[in-house]
Amino acid sequence: MTGRLTIALDAMGGDHAPGAVLRGANIALRRNPNLDFLVYGRSEAVEPLLKKMKRLKGHAEFVHAEDVVGNEVKPSVALRTGRKSSMRLAIEAVKGNLAKAAVSSGNTGALMAMAKLALRTLPGVDRPAIASFFPTQRGESVMLDLGANVTCDADNLVQFAVMGNAFARSVLGLQSPSYGLLNVGAEEMKGHDALQDAAAQLRGIALPGQFHGFVEGDDIAKGTVDVVVTDGFTGNVALKTAEGTVKLYTEFLRSTFRHSLLASLGYLLAKPAMRKLRARVDPRRYNGAVFLGLNGIAVKSHGGSDALGFAHAIGLAADLARHGFIDTMRGDLAALGTARDDTAPQVAAS
Amino acid sequence: MTGRLTIALDAMGGDHAPGAVLRGANIALRRNPNLDFLVYGRSEAVEPLLKKMKRLKGHAEFVHAEDVVGNEVKPSVALRTGRKSSMRLAIEAVKGNLAKAAVSSGNTGALMAMAKLALRTLPGVDRPAIASFFPTQRGESVMLDLGANVTCDADNLVQFAVMGNAFARSVLGLQSPSYGLLNVGAEEMKGHDALQDAAAQLRGIALPGQFHGFVEGDDIAKGTVDVVVTDGFTGNVALKTAEGTVKLYTEFLRSTFRHSLLASLGYLLAKPAMRKLRARVDPRRYNGAVFLGLNGIAVKSHGGSDALGFAHAIGLAADLARHGFIDTMRGDLAALGTARDDTAPQVAAS
Repeated sequence: MTGRLTIALDAMGGDHAPGAVLRGANIALRRNPNLDFLVYGRSEAVEPLLKKMKRLKGHAEFVHAEDVVGNEVKPSVALRTGRKSSMRLAIEAVKGNLAKAAVSSGNTGALMAMAKLALRTLPGVDRPAIASFFPTQRGESVMLDLGANVTCDADNLVQFAVMGNAFARSVLGLQSPSYGLLNVGAEEMKGHDALQDAAAQLRGIALPGQFHGFVEGDDIAKGTVDVVVTDGFTGNVALKTAEGTVKLYTEFLRSTFRHSLLASLGYLLAKPAMRKLRARVDPRRYNGAVFLGLNGIAVKSHGGSDALGFAHAIGLAADLARHGFIDTMRGDLAALGTARDDTAPQVAAS
Repeated sequence: MTGRLTIALDAMGGDHAPGAVLRGANIALRRNPNLDFLVYGRSEAVEPLLKKMKRLKGHAEFVHAEDVVGNEVKPSVALRTGRKSSMRLAIEAVKGNLAKAAVSSGNTGALMAMAKLALRTLPGVDRPAIASFFPTQRGESVMLDLGANVTCDADNLVQFAVMGNAFARSVLGLQSPSYGLLNVGAEEMKGHDALQDAAAQLRGIALPGQFHGFVEGDDIAKGTVDVVVTDGFTGNVALKTAEGTVKLYTEFLRSTFRHSLLASLGYLLAKPAMRKLRARVDPRRYNGAVFLGLNGIAVKSHGGSDALGFAHAIGLAADLARHGFIDTMRGDLAALGTARDDTAPQVAAS
């Protein structure tokens, strides 16, 4: 992998902006010296920091952005009033081909609305989705939608399956990812109508990857499939439930080791190993949710992410860009369209 | 708490029946000597085991049941063909007031269908729900529905809130439980219409307990509210996602301690404390899902539960019976009906 790659950064998004954004870019640059950055933000906030970061400064072009999109602003308001915001300018840089991807820790709804408007959806996509990856017993898996669409019909779910598949091939490096629909039981008759219809379509259409059928909540962490497909409501609840459970377990573990002198001593001995465990479940490693289905790469970093988390989100954006992710997805979606036209008489319910 | 209490047991339900059921009853009896059991099952499977369990035999009346409800049988088929099944007879014992509660590890859908038919729903309940409790950072909380209803409207959710509240008061011993609606954001405008409507109703009606508003997936393990109210699809996915995450973390923990000699030694020293941790997250401790909204107590034990898990499910059934749970719930539902009639002109959307 050679050649330089430019990433546009919203320096004003997130709880720790702009510090975490700039320090994150610095970490990402150390890991991947071929990166260049277009940094959008308020000059009085960003420039003093950037001035102190010599190496980053050599690979970053700063552009002043008058406005900042607030965390509580509704997407429709952000679209209207945020035309000169750092978030919007970062997205526009991708549209104008100045950058290969945009990364922001800002307001998710606003970022999605701006990305949709500026980048447009790819042909064959009714609604974009949010995807991310996470650790499992078998390695790593991808889940989508994580919250872009509160309700979804069967066609949306089928498109998410195609999009998630392309994502897994690009990010996880899998040749033929397996994918499943999240449901309340693995039996064919379970779940609501949209799931039944989507499963019927996915069984009938030849897509890249292996359709596994339905999976359940515990299959997410098991890694039963490489791609878990679900609506944005269920995906968001599942993701946050898993995050909350990890925190609870960590808390229990901490109090366990404080339980006795012997346990504390045991903890000291096991400390280096425990540090590896913590790194393995560290949410910062899995930071970076991607908006799938758009004609361009936009990555949402967690609002609370620190520099290390932001560096991971930049790394994810760079990976996607290098692997020609948008072209892969465009090809898959075109194949879905053709397959659908071919099978249309059989798939009456679609 | 004095006075004897009879629990009806489906001895043939679950992966380890009838052994786990009988040994579970034996453990429950040791913990609570005031229990008596009505044991339903096939005589050739149950009686030889029961004969060897002297103490249990003194507190158990065995009744032969010709049929067994299979795990794969559809609820409608079980209703038609399972009239002489151990599951059905256990439920009928509650209906006929021979027992105060029924416990089964068998087919969930069949058990729910039989319980609904025999026990009927309480006045004011459109659909029964499945509830269970689980550990949180603050202690224990209750969640419902866990899978009885794949789709729910606002009225269902409001009724679940009332039912979950009564459950939390009886089982967790709380005077005024807090409750929240599971959503994809805590902001008032988030989520689909049924959630919006339910929140509006819950804000308008004075119920026992404190309405907290919306909660998110990570609030479940945090224990932000005592009662998490959701539809059966989301609740089922959330519950199983949490279970899967605990297993994943446990697996990671195990491999961490195998990581080095030092870590293994550390584990040895911390072992007694670790055992307490395992007990704290042991799913057997939280075994027992209750069908809420019926005119009688029916507890579903996990299909894979062993004797200890089954004993916990019996303990839960006994707790509910002793606390007059059905009367509490009947009173709360009547109050909801009255409150609704009073506020009807304001709550046009209901």
